[in-house]
Amino acid sequence: MSEAVQFWPDPPTTGAEPLQAWMPRILQRVECALGALLPSVEVFPCALHEAMRYATLGGGKRLRALLCHAAGELVDADPRLLDGAASAIEMIHAYSLVHDDLPAMDNDLLRRGQPTVHVRYGEATAILVGDGLQAQAFVVIGELSGSAEQKLALLHELAHASSSLGMVGGQAIDLASVGLSLPREELERMHRMKTGALLRAAVLMGAHCGVSPIEPGLHHALDDYQRALGLAFQVVDDVLDVTTDAATLGKTPGKDAQDHKPTYVSLLGLDAARALAGQLGERARDALAPLGARAAHLHGLADMVVHRVY
Amino acid sequence: MSEAVQFWPDPPTTGAEPLQAWMPRILQRVECALGALLPSVEVFPCALHEAMRYATLGGGKRLRALLCHAAGELVDADPRLLDGAASAIEMIHAYSLVHDDLPAMDNDLLRRGQPTVHVRYGEATAILVGDGLQAQAFVVIGELSGSAEQKLALLHELAHASSSLGMVGGQAIDLASVGLSLPREELERMHRMKTGALLRAAVLMGAHCGVSPIEPGLHHALDDYQRALGLAFQVVDDVLDVTTDAATLGKTPGKDAQDHKPTYVSLLGLDAARALAGQLGERARDALAPLGARAAHLHGLADMVVHRVY
Repeated sequence: MSEAVQFWPDPPTTGAEPLQAWMPRILQRVECALGALLPSVEVFPCALHEAMRYATLGGGKRLRALLCHAAGELVDADPRLLDGAASAIEMIHAYSLVHDDLPAMDNDLLRRGQPTVHVRYGEATAILVGDGLQAQAFVVIGELSGSAEQKLALLHELAHASSSLGMVGGQAIDLASVGLSLPREELERMHRMKTGALLRAAVLMGAHCGVSPIEPGLHHALDDYQRALGLAFQVVDDVLDVTTDAATLGKTPGKDAQDHKPTYVSLLGLDAARALAGQLGERARDALAPLGARAAHLHGLADMVVHRVY
Repeated sequence: MSEAVQFWPDPPTTGAEPLQAWMPRILQRVECALGALLPSVEVFPCALHEAMRYATLGGGKRLRALLCHAAGELVDADPRLLDGAASAIEMIHAYSLVHDDLPAMDNDLLRRGQPTVHVRYGEATAILVGDGLQAQAFVVIGELSGSAEQKLALLHELAHASSSLGMVGGQAIDLASVGLSLPREELERMHRMKTGALLRAAVLMGAHCGVSPIEPGLHHALDDYQRALGLAFQVVDDVLDVTTDAATLGKTPGKDAQDHKPTYVSLLGLDAARALAGQLGERARDALAPLGARAAHLHGLADMVVHRVY
């Protein structure tokens, strides 16, 4: 993997909208949808809604929303349906960060360059913000414009990914593994649940927004893609945690080592972890090969995950 | 309202199964369904699943599950569908208790006569238990045996009731009202959200388990019923908090006064609060009058709410 990092990967060489134009356009759509799908600060109880909006809006890479849109384009999904599905996923992601940052969990003070929700609004409100965001995600799924079958497919993916067999289970293992040296297989299983499950849901939910059920070949390609991408995301996270300063990262760096958590860097060393991220990026791109040029945005997102600097 | 309390109300005088037989039968069904719909302790991560089961199984009045079943009987709903819907509601209720008991919230040590989840398993696990139970409730809704329309109606009710416009919003107001003397109207609004929303969802979800959409007359009657019942439940809760010992209550009594929270007893005095509970019980029964004898179990549950001793 090249040492040179760039936030904007090379433009895809296909007829698709270049990533540099596509990404800000999608980000703007999603931000707008999120703002509309969260209760306004003028809705009672106002203080809670202000905190829920603080936790969700105005920051974050929105990788899950971008993956959902990029996968949805493969099946010509209605972009408004993708906006709703992407917003629900981002609400789940935002809630998980609010709860993970709590003093009883990772005790983080900084997130997206801002004070974490419990620092800003107090611990009780932070717990309720997370609880309310999770419920709101399912409110949003229930109110989407799609068919009943589409909505139920989206509910299935999102609920399973958020459950104790997915994201919440992964966080439980993460907390239980503090101070342990997990074997690589266990570390992978933890990350497949903690971050991988929701990244997988983002990709599959995008594809579920098409009018037909997901065709098996596409499902297979997307599944291979998300598996490599999810792992690459985590390996890069571990690398950035030891190589990047707080201002760039937007959160407290060095936390994992400080908390004696097992990481790919502690397991493999920095250089091997970097090399692994590059290989996983290759694997994600290979998985997309059968889909041809129409997967250009998923391709670009894989590059972005591997080459990201925060 | 009579001073004499009895847990089992008088049997209904209709042809319906007597409440004394119906209630334990339904409770057994629901306990069995909950056990099957929660991940087993043998499923990874085992410790989290053990704690999720501890939080949910083997205790509680299951009022919401009983309301769901009793309302479902009015529309000849499939009992297995009602078991699933009732289990999802009880999972949401159980999660809300786990989070409400946390040190940053009500800091309760005792629940259903047992150590609260954070006392037994630690605070981080308790946060994740609540998060996982909420997600599991929506997993269950997605996997019910009903039609797509039924499942989406159930999703709508449960997600809205759990949201910041329902239960979570009510808890936020409750926390913000510590030390304040709320006007009665504000106190009612808080309870309508904090406990009323999920009781309402339980009643309406039962009715949604029928094969047809809820008929307007039935919806109207059930809505009047749940409004009176939900308020009666809270007024009795406030009365029991000052009149009952910990062993009977299964949780720490006197907490509200100690926490300087507004209650119906602090607002109206004990006798007037008792009288109000009786009036609300009457109102709940009146709401059922148009439904005739087939509402006997809902009738009995209203009596139980007013006359309960824990």
